[in-house]
Amino acid sequence: MLQKSLNDETRTESLKKAVGLLENAQSILILAHKSPDGDTVGSSFALCRALLKLGKKARVVCSDTIPAKFSYFTNGLDFENSEPDLIVASDVASVNLLGDKLSCYADKIGLCIDHHPSNSVNAGYSFVDPSAAATCEITAELVYLLKVDIDKNIANCIYTGIATDTGCFRYSNTTPKTLRTAADMIEKGADSAVINKKLFETVSHERLEFEKLALQTLELHFDGKVALIVLTKEMSQKTGVDEADTEGIPSIPARIEGVEAGITVKEKDDGVYKISLRTGSTLNASDICANFGGGGHAAAAGCTIEGTLDEVKQKILQAVKDELDKQRMKGKEEWTA
Amino acid sequence: MLQKSLNDETRTESLKKAVGLLENAQSILILAHKSPDGDTVGSSFALCRALLKLGKKARVVCSDTIPAKFSYFTNGLDFENSEPDLIVASDVASVNLLGDKLSCYADKIGLCIDHHPSNSVNAGYSFVDPSAAATCEITAELVYLLKVDIDKNIANCIYTGIATDTGCFRYSNTTPKTLRTAADMIEKGADSAVINKKLFETVSHERLEFEKLALQTLELHFDGKVALIVLTKEMSQKTGVDEADTEGIPSIPARIEGVEAGITVKEKDDGVYKISLRTGSTLNASDICANFGGGGHAAAAGCTIEGTLDEVKQKILQAVKDELDKQRMKGKEEWTA
Repeated sequence: MLQKSLNDETRTESLKKAVGLLENAQSILILAHKSPDGDTVGSSFALCRALLKLGKKARVVCSDTIPAKFSYFTNGLDFENSEPDLIVASDVASVNLLGDKLSCYADKIGLCIDHHPSNSVNAGYSFVDPSAAATCEITAELVYLLKVDIDKNIANCIYTGIATDTGCFRYSNTTPKTLRTAADMIEKGADSAVINKKLFETVSHERLEFEKLALQTLELHFDGKVALIVLTKEMSQKTGVDEADTEGIPSIPARIEGVEAGITVKEKDDGVYKISLRTGSTLNASDICANFGGGGHAAAAGCTIEGTLDEVKQKILQAVKDELDKQRMKGKEEWTA
Repeated sequence: MLQKSLNDETRTESLKKAVGLLENAQSILILAHKSPDGDTVGSSFALCRALLKLGKKARVVCSDTIPAKFSYFTNGLDFENSEPDLIVASDVASVNLLGDKLSCYADKIGLCIDHHPSNSVNAGYSFVDPSAAATCEITAELVYLLKVDIDKNIANCIYTGIATDTGCFRYSNTTPKTLRTAADMIEKGADSAVINKKLFETVSHERLEFEKLALQTLELHFDGKVALIVLTKEMSQKTGVDEADTEGIPSIPARIEGVEAGITVKEKDDGVYKISLRTGSTLNASDICANFGGGGHAAAAGCTIEGTLDEVKQKILQAVKDELDKQRMKGKEEWTA
């Protein structure tokens, strides 16, 4: 059962049902998604810590290692192995995202807590609220309803998840409720300044070197309306950058003033390139990528194109140009109508 | 009279005194500081719009042109010239910051509203609250107390000032109150997502090209503890970047993981270089810059050094190294004590 657009009353009832499941369980296993980010890890550990404070057994598992930058989540935690009577998936939009190690739990999830509109997990009970900027925003409500006093550790977990999924309150998913939940967490002791610095202000030297090489490939096309960068395997090897550490690079070309489409062409295998496309309000990235069997959202989409680098660049540039021309024609028609 | 650390009651009384001055005036002239940023312009226009809604005459003046990115502040405003009976300085920390065109008002300021702890304006009445992340945080309170209904335009002004001075809620000056004021402004209609994109996600092509050249000069020293970049006049000429558009570049070297001191050496005139130094928690930037007659804050300071580029680099690197060695010795002494 998904709660996609509920009125406040129904929403509270649904949340209370989730709380009831947690209250009735004695040993809870919480699943975070693979390639863990601040929201899945933050929401999992916040819930885990709250349940431990209620005297229950609880632990968090993840297919992949929790990144070192989130080490503060586990401060002072020492998990005990026990047979769970409730399995909770936190911020897991699909069972495919459980990863190899946790795939065995795919059909055993008793409670699913998430904010992704595409959530497809088949759980005993699901609370999915796409109006929440982060799963942690929902977790904060759950912890309040569980009547657990939020301590510094829980506050750090929840703050981290919210900051992660909103780009530190920059993205359009940030609502008044998001900001107020973050304010509450700072009041409960969250080290917001330290977390912000670690997550948003610190880059590895390898990442910076990789970015430098990426910027050297920057091309502007069609009167500066389209910007394109290329990321090659050679750049990764040369700089020694970690794959996870290249996050956010595809948003660079789209950030340039006047650019309506930012294209990142990333070399995968010989003759295979992954395209990331970011667009402004005039172009639909998903439609353009659909030409190559890809897809995504209106403002951010992707696809795979085969060929030499030059061929691939020409193909995606032509597809973007066609769409720009279409938009211009549409504008002209409206003008002359 | 400066309100540097007041209890809530005294603070409210002081704010009400400021409100009284505004209520008693019929024609108000509001001064923003030179090189205007989002906070001085936002707080000035928010107050101006509130006063206009109360049927008063009010206008904003600034020594420099308001940057185009803030054009939404003046939406629908049409100033009438009139002799002011109250002159308000908003976010102006010192009369030197009024700029040439407004210096004539230096000894005529009736009310000073600010959040800079260093405020030295000699006004009829001053309300200075350094606990506020932005002057706009104070302006929001003033507008509430003036019983003006905050509309979308006022909300956009206040949101912009707060977002500007907190780096969109990243900096350590962000408090729960800051986040809650921003939440209120979004509820009142502030276009937060549009403003964030414009202020924090958009860069000019010239700036990106300048950044690329700056990154090419990046050097790491002393086991990666010190990072240094060089900005030359040639780079500015080559890229055509605007001076105002190079803001934030000195924070790049300090962002690198493991770096304790980030140095930016910027060419001013022949044989004269401006140093910007950013440090982590172990080093005091102000102390290091004091060696060259400069100063600033513990984490961000500056100075000017003369010589060839190589000489200047050696001088500042040596000064940082001396401080690093001192800290290491101190650490050793503590260790063996």
